[in-house]
Parts: sequence; C-alpha cells; structure tokens
Amino acid sequence: MRDVSIIGIGQVEVGEHWDKSLRELGYYALNAAMRDACIQHIDSLYVGNMLSGELTGQEHIGSIIADFAGLRGVEAVKIEAACGSGAAALRMGYIAVAGGMSDFVACMGVEKMTDRQGNTVTSALAMAADGDYEALHGLSFVSINALLMRRYMHEHGYTKDDFAPFAINAHANAVNNPYAMFHNPITRKQFTESKMIADPVSLLDSSPIADGAACVILAPTAIAREFTEKPVRVRASAIATDSVAVHDRRDPLFLEGGAISAQKAYSAAGVGPADMDLFEVHDAFTIMSALSLEAAGFASRGKGVALAQEGQIMPGGRIPITTMGGLKARGHPVGATGMYQLVELATQLRGEAGKSQLANARLGMAQNIGGSGATVVTTILESSF
Amino acid sequence: MRDVSIIGIGQVEVGEHWDKSLRELGYYALNAAMRDACIQHIDSLYVGNMLSGELTGQEHIGSIIADFAGLRGVEAVKIEAACGSGAAALRMGYIAVAGGMSDFVACMGVEKMTDRQGNTVTSALAMAADGDYEALHGLSFVSINALLMRRYMHEHGYTKDDFAPFAINAHANAVNNPYAMFHNPITRKQFTESKMIADPVSLLDSSPIADGAACVILAPTAIAREFTEKPVRVRASAIATDSVAVHDRRDPLFLEGGAISAQKAYSAAGVGPADMDLFEVHDAFTIMSALSLEAAGFASRGKGVALAQEGQIMPGGRIPITTMGGLKARGHPVGATGMYQLVELATQLRGEAGKSQLANARLGMAQNIGGSGATVVTTILESSF
Repeated sequence: MRDVSIIGIGQVEVGEHWDKSLRELGYYALNAAMRDACIQHIDSLYVGNMLSGELTGQEHIGSIIADFAGLRGVEAVKIEAACGSGAAALRMGYIAVAGGMSDFVACMGVEKMTDRQGNTVTSALAMAADGDYEALHGLSFVSINALLMRRYMHEHGYTKDDFAPFAINAHANAVNNPYAMFHNPITRKQFTESKMIADPVSLLDSSPIADGAACVILAPTAIAREFTEKPVRVRASAIATDSVAVHDRRDPLFLEGGAISAQKAYSAAGVGPADMDLFEVHDAFTIMSALSLEAAGFASRGKGVALAQEGQIMPGGRIPITTMGGLKARGHPVGATGMYQLVELATQLRGEAGKSQLANARLGMAQNIGGSGATVVTTILESSF
Repeated sequence: MRDVSIIGIGQVEVGEHWDKSLRELGYYALNAAMRDACIQHIDSLYVGNMLSGELTGQEHIGSIIADFAGLRGVEAVKIEAACGSGAAALRMGYIAVAGGMSDFVACMGVEKMTDRQGNTVTSALAMAADGDYEALHGLSFVSINALLMRRYMHEHGYTKDDFAPFAINAHANAVNNPYAMFHNPITRKQFTESKMIADPVSLLDSSPIADGAACVILAPTAIAREFTEKPVRVRASAIATDSVAVHDRRDPLFLEGGAISAQKAYSAAGVGPADMDLFEVHDAFTIMSALSLEAAGFASRGKGVALAQEGQIMPGGRIPITTMGGLKARGHPVGATGMYQLVELATQLRGEAGKSQLANARLGMAQNIGGSGATVVTTILESSF
C-alpha cells in the first residue's frame, strides 16, 4: 500500500447559488483543485452527492461533471452515503491511490439544495433516515435530533442552553472564512432566544441547507512534492456503519459507527485522540457535536457538552472544532459537507487559514456523519512539509 | 496489485416483487452470495443502485442493507452511474481487493422499480440522460434509442426487422434461466408485429423494467480456493465516460466510452476480442447491442447487426451474447443489471448454466452501459480451475 497525500484543494462559497447549476458548482471546485495541484489530467473522479436526483432531477452526475470539466472519457462515478457522501468519496479515492490503481484522483462533494421548496428538501433529507420505520411515520432529521438532544439532557443533566458554546464557537470561526455561508458572530443571548424548531432544537442548534462543492486531488506521497510545496498526508480514512433507524441502536446516545470508524482510523495511523491538534465535527445539530466528540474519544460519555462549556473546543483549547465555521456557520450542502470538512482541515494543516489559522496545526481529524450516525467516515490528515 | 477472484455469486429472480422491499431484495442476493462463498464476514459492501431515492424514497441504502443483513458496522456505500451502477460497484470492490485494502468485498446491484406508475419510472430513468439538454425537452430513453436506431438504419442501410435476431436470441437464451423474467421464446413474426413504442423502437426491441438484486463476493485469488472449487478471476475492470447528451458526441453512433473502457480492459488483461468465448452486452434496446459489439471490437462499424443476422451471436456462433437472456428477457432492474451480467458470466465460466451452458466458456466479457453510453464499464472474467 502506498502512502497518499492531498496535493490540491478547491471549493466554492457555500450559499444559495440560484445562478449556477450542479454541474457548474462541481466544475468550479474541481477546476480550483486541479489548478492548486498544477495538474491537467486525472485518472478518476469520485463525486460524493446525496440528492442530485431528488432535488435537481439529475443522476449520472459523475459523467455530467467530468464532461463539463473537459475530462470526457475519464472514470467517474457518484458515491452516496447520505450526509456522509463527501468523505466517502475521499475514501474511494484513497483506496484507489493507496492500492496503486490510480495516481491522480479527484474526490469531490457537491450538492444543490436551495432551488427547491423547504418541504421538498425536508422530505428529501428524510431519505437518509429509515424510510419504513422513521420517515414514513413523520420523523424528519430535526425531530430525530430533537429526540436525541432531549434524551441526552435527561440522561446527563444538561439544559438546552448548555449547548450554546457549539453554535457560538462555530459562528465565531466562520467570520474569517471567505467560503462560509454566515459571517456573523452570535451571542449567548441570541442562542437562548432563537426560534424553537422542534423542542429542544432551536434555529441556532441547526445547520442551514445550502449549495456548494469542494474537491481534493489525491496522489502518491512519493511524488506529491512535484506538485505542491505543502502536501497533506492522508494518514487514515475509514468508514463504519450502524443501524439507520435510531431505535434499533444498542444505545441511541452512542455513535457506535463513530467509535468504530475512529478506532479503525487511529489504528491505521498509529495515533490517538490525544495527538490531534483539531477535529472537524459534523455539527448538523449541536447534539451531534457532543455525540461525535464522545464517540471519537475526545470526551467521556456525557461530557461532550461539558468540554464545550469549558471552552476546550475553541481555538487555543484542548481540541478546537469547527475551526472554519462547521456545518452550523459554513453551511451544510449535505453531500458536499464531508469534503468541505477535509478542505478546511487541509487548509489549517497547510497554514493557509488566514485569520482562522490555529497555532501548531500538524495533525487533524474529521468525522463526517450520514443520517443520525448510520454511516460515519473518519479521516486523519497530517502536514508533511 | 493482487490478482482478484469471484468466490461467490447470488441473485434473486428478476420480476415484479411487490411483496419484497429493496432491502429484502438486497439481503437475499447478498446472503446467497455469502453462502455460495462459505463466508460469514465481509470487509465492505458496495451497492450499485440508481433510483432508490426517486422510486422507493430511500437513500443511504448501503447502511440499510448492511444492517438488515446482520452486518452492522461494516463499511458500506452506494455507487451510482445510472444503468452502469452494477458493474461500477464491482469496479470499486476490485480496486479495494486488488490494492490490498480489503480481503472480502461484496459487490451488489439492486433496484426496485415496479411499485411505481409507468410515467414516474420513465421520468426517473430520464435522470440518466442530460437533465438540461435532453430530459427537460421531453427526450425519454426510448426516444433517445429511437433516434439512434433510425440514424443507424439510415447510415448503414438496414431495416427495422434486421434487428430481430438480437431479441430472438435473448428470449431463446432466457428460457432455461430460472432467474429470468421471461421464459417465452419469440418468433421473427412476433418481433415484426410487436407494438410500436417510438418509431422504429417497438416493444420487442426494448428491455422491461423490473425489480432485482445480484451480488458477487471478491477475494484475493491467492486464497480463493479456500472458499470455492471454482474461482473466477477478474482479469480486468475498467470504467470510461462520454458526454451524457448524445448530441455532444463526436459521432452519436459510436460508443467512445465503450471503446475506451474495452481497450483499457483488453490492455490490462493482455487479451483481445478474438480471445473471448462470450460477451454479455447491455441490450437495453436492440440498437445498444449493435453499438456495444462495434465499440468493443467484435464487429466493424455498421456490422453489428450483420453479425447478428449471420447467427454469430447465438450459442455456437463466433461470439455468443446475452447467453442467459440479457436485459431483454432476463429483465432490466437498472442499477442491478450490471451485476446480473457478471453473475451470469460467472455462472457460464463455472459451467453451471444448466441448459443454457455454452461449450468451452473460459474467458468472457461484459459491458454495462449507463445512459446511452455516457458511462461504460467493461469487465473481463476467466475460469481458473
């Protein structure tokens, strides 16, 4: 198996791109990544996406984007694992380059959501839940997270306001990220007073739907320096699953898929949570940040929220999270999100995060979650310059 | 890179499974393949599927099927490349095993289509075409194939009836395939008199939509004999793309993606069309059989239909095609089709095709086509016992 590095990154601003089609968004991100890597050819393109069919009426987007980008002929497929699609696409590319099948692989995440009505989008997103046992009975993703958050508060003795630090930190970190959807810091008072969506999940617990695309170029580490002065090594990429329906889990408050994929990744890289300088969590809702921190070993059971209250998730804290805004403030174009996490992580590890730059960011991790934890992709990246 | 073999195959009957959900179909095929391989564990599951979201309201089917099959925790993702999804899933598994990332990978194709109204299915299938430049203007897949067939007849001087041998051969070969949707042979008269759908494409030029699931288990060839007496080597697996919109192609009657992926596969395996004992073509419509035979080098330009007229595509002919019924008579559950082709090819190479068995079937090829040629997956399999 070969060592693999990211030699190029690209992204478009997350937002409401009513003037750009899905293929255009994908092309912009791919083109930016290929220019960053100084390459004009790739062997294959893996496109992470969840809802192109449901929301834009287009499947087969691997070929669509490859052709639109002037890469007609190249191997191209779509990879789907609900909101975990983005990092799952990286996993497929990682396997291809590590195993020696391909030398240059573009891994993309792309999603276009804001052209459609809210109800349509809510129904489409519910396809990440169990259609027969959850969605059919009216459970949306907000309500699933509300049930989890309520139970977590009950089990561990927190109030709703205790989750504020997750949202405040995310918004503060997005201010200087030019690709983020929101650039407004929020206060504890704003969090407390924000509109209730599904008790106890309020507006500021929730990430916004959005349009976006992000892309990385992978190559063997042995030749990475021919293309970039700042290669970022992929130390590990692992996928684990769990039951899609929350009621089928052994413990609804423990992300078993998150724990398994983190352990696989730690084991592959020979590191542990104590070695990490930052952690991009999948904060689709504040409760998911807490559960991911616990599953990945950064906090013991029930202590994810306490870690946030102590300020340890902020820049300078023990384990900074959502360092460029997270899903909450960068925005959550679902199938693209996992790739945004990785592009942001790579940006930090390259020391190119501008005013969002963390000191001493050498080794970092991202956890990209599909559904309410049924697919979890853990990726560990490291500076290698 | 390791040599890779198929150590188990499984499939469900193609048909209208109104009493079985998508996850059940997937589970039956996966279970059958794992039993055939005598294994109780896999490292990962790649699920080829096109329309689970649009037609069953369920994305995230990697986790859904893994959990339902009792494999909770395992790596599982969906692979989508329109009607080429099935063989694209094999390609992903092949990369993982060949490269050394996984030892036991289940590659599946699954689709459930017949619960929905015909118009809904036609619209959903059109998502394999270019949404902005084809589907939006009313082109369905039948009409795209009608345009191609009409042009082919004009360019090469054929009549509509000249395409009859493709349908007659497919139906004849399905009679003894217990997993096929249709077991009725058809006559030339029936072909000539069959209902016109979109001139010149009539009912018997067209493959039927259906529900189905098929699965293979891949493992390194070095250990394959511990699990089966009849390993089938994967000599090559290659994907190539083309423009999705037919009007953008350099020549609408030449499947450039088919030619590129066939050349890649021939080159990887060190063989050519003259070495093949059989060829599973993607006969979604009769015209596609002709174009695939030509792109893959079995007939020169314009001679695919002549090859069929000469009887060379039948058992005993130069290059038998659709040996278990093809899409036309086995049925075409779109995202599953590519995997059915491979399961049937492996069945022939294992000498287990019963009354459909070809003599001397040692090396065979399958071409699985997404859209009207925008994704083409070529796979070469060989007996190794």
